[in-house]
Amino acid sequence: MGSCGGESESRVAVVGSGNWGSVAAKLIASNALQLHSFHDEVRMWVFEEKLPAGEKLSDAINRTNENVKYLPGVKLGKNVVADPDLAHAVKDANMLVFVTPHQFMEGICRDLAGKIREGAQAISLCKGMEVKKEGPQMISALISEKLGINCCVLMGANIANEIAERKFSEATVGYRDDKEIAEEWVRLFNTPYFRVSAVQDVEGVELCGTLKNVVAIAAGFVDGLEMGNNTKAAIMRIGLREMKAFSKLLFPSVKDTTFFESCGVADLITTCLGGRNRKVAEAYAKNEGKRSFDELEAEMLGGQKLQGVMTAREVYEVMSHRGWLELFPLFRTVHEICAGQLQPPAIVEHSEQPPKFNAADGTAELISSM
Amino acid sequence: MGSCGGESESRVAVVGSGNWGSVAAKLIASNALQLHSFHDEVRMWVFEEKLPAGEKLSDAINRTNENVKYLPGVKLGKNVVADPDLAHAVKDANMLVFVTPHQFMEGICRDLAGKIREGAQAISLCKGMEVKKEGPQMISALISEKLGINCCVLMGANIANEIAERKFSEATVGYRDDKEIAEEWVRLFNTPYFRVSAVQDVEGVELCGTLKNVVAIAAGFVDGLEMGNNTKAAIMRIGLREMKAFSKLLFPSVKDTTFFESCGVADLITTCLGGRNRKVAEAYAKNEGKRSFDELEAEMLGGQKLQGVMTAREVYEVMSHRGWLELFPLFRTVHEICAGQLQPPAIVEHSEQPPKFNAADGTAELISSM
Repeated sequence: MGSCGGESESRVAVVGSGNWGSVAAKLIASNALQLHSFHDEVRMWVFEEKLPAGEKLSDAINRTNENVKYLPGVKLGKNVVADPDLAHAVKDANMLVFVTPHQFMEGICRDLAGKIREGAQAISLCKGMEVKKEGPQMISALISEKLGINCCVLMGANIANEIAERKFSEATVGYRDDKEIAEEWVRLFNTPYFRVSAVQDVEGVELCGTLKNVVAIAAGFVDGLEMGNNTKAAIMRIGLREMKAFSKLLFPSVKDTTFFESCGVADLITTCLGGRNRKVAEAYAKNEGKRSFDELEAEMLGGQKLQGVMTAREVYEVMSHRGWLELFPLFRTVHEICAGQLQPPAIVEHSEQPPKFNAADGTAELISSM
Repeated sequence: MGSCGGESESRVAVVGSGNWGSVAAKLIASNALQLHSFHDEVRMWVFEEKLPAGEKLSDAINRTNENVKYLPGVKLGKNVVADPDLAHAVKDANMLVFVTPHQFMEGICRDLAGKIREGAQAISLCKGMEVKKEGPQMISALISEKLGINCCVLMGANIANEIAERKFSEATVGYRDDKEIAEEWVRLFNTPYFRVSAVQDVEGVELCGTLKNVVAIAAGFVDGLEMGNNTKAAIMRIGLREMKAFSKLLFPSVKDTTFFESCGVADLITTCLGGRNRKVAEAYAKNEGKRSFDELEAEMLGGQKLQGVMTAREVYEVMSHRGWLELFPLFRTVHEICAGQLQPPAIVEHSEQPPKFNAADGTAELISSM
């Protein structure tokens, strides 16, 4: 891609307009204005809803240049155009940014099949995985399969509101083969206060972003039990070790070094310090498991579902199916607590015994060498 | 070592009786009682001081079975004997545990030379390094050199008071060659609530424990500047990367996997969440650098010196001497802020530019591949 304008310019569409989607659109829009190889306009698909005053969300965004519902008070940039029509929003774009709750991605891909530009590239900012009979499918793989296009991922220690305030942070792009495409995504997102770097490990980066929410639930339990910083750090470390081992068992191409990137240790830290997964899990432990996650989610998140609780169940299904439950005591315990089968203090008790390895298939040595 | 008692029993002496030393003595004492291969009595050398009421500290410890000054309210175990005479405390011991501020170790080794049992083994819980003209010397190496004995290290996410309360935590033993000795140290320290594991990387483990205090100063600045969790996680990640790269440049034998152990990422997290290095650095940044570290240390720590400030200076000396200043912008900036040459916001500003590598000697590729 070059700076010759016209047909060769890249056009970006952002599919999703929640809190993180809006910040992503803002970052991209400010770079698109400055980089000659990008068309100025950035289309942002909005899942339409009516605001209390009766106005449509997309109209309100285009009138005020703010996402008044999910990122109020922050100007997105005049070159961001909200569009409630999914197919129309992506029609001219050759760079597609997916940033929606992961459970919506299957339907979005179905709606988009056959409607995107030839040669388009995608990047997924979605956290989570689809668990199917034949095994787990990462969102980047779902996009690639359903739309027939290459898909990178971007993950990192990215609390959206802090980035909107231009506070320094970092992110990681994961790519499969094509380094030039990855560098194009880096150019599109990178700013002095948002430093992006690329690693050739799409699954590793994506699994970091996905699995860290399970560890954040564990960290929240430790906070609710008032176990102190040593215990919290130990549980986070055990969680990071399970993230790494689980990722490498699923995808042998996953690299250790990915876990030292922003998507790994930094995102884990941010998510376990703040974040709503941690917060609701803390409340669950404080209530000694007597109020369900459903009830707490309804009260604390207006009924929105916690990503970490969903991911813990998905991971549990994968582990059950593959006979890995003994290998990942922390992941397993998080789900069993969320499902009401164990009490919150179990999160520490399981760690007081060294994990039992299933030596039969050699997985034991594999895990301990990870 | 066996369980046959008498001459073949191991005898342990703990050299140091501060907060962490007292907790270490307590852990060891409870295990020594249960393990047949250890003599019950654990000698703890006390740097003698007079308590306000006029009693000697060692007498008070032996009378109350508590370190009334550094770990009040916690019984050490009846088999801990405080001894103010260094040579006498170690005389019969074949397992020596060193846990004092690192700046005292050179003097202690001088006093002990020629006075320890033949075949004795040592373990160091001290954080820090000695910077000399010929290069930095780790404390374990100082002990080995001055006393002519093998020395392991034990580091980890170990806030002493939380361990004294039996809250779950982990630690890492680093050893050089002899795995059996390392396992003996693991047996001596390990309890269900204090899980110890061993890795063959004495320098890696020791440098983790030492360098994390420099990163904690950086994290404290971020807290004082109220930059939020993204920025704090990013700075901790950059700090961890510099810890790893610096350790590997100093000692090519250092292993990446060590940084995933308790001594690595977990200790970094604990130290950057709580800890006095973080706390005093936060106060420094809140005061916009107008009150010196000396002044804040006097006020907040009763004049005790911050390990992180000292280590930052030591690391800076090593980097200056070896021409590495450009390679480690975070470590460099921490020292330059502590020394009053830069203002606290510099901790983030340096990160907004990618580090400049000194390509001349190939260190650039080395670092970026670390």
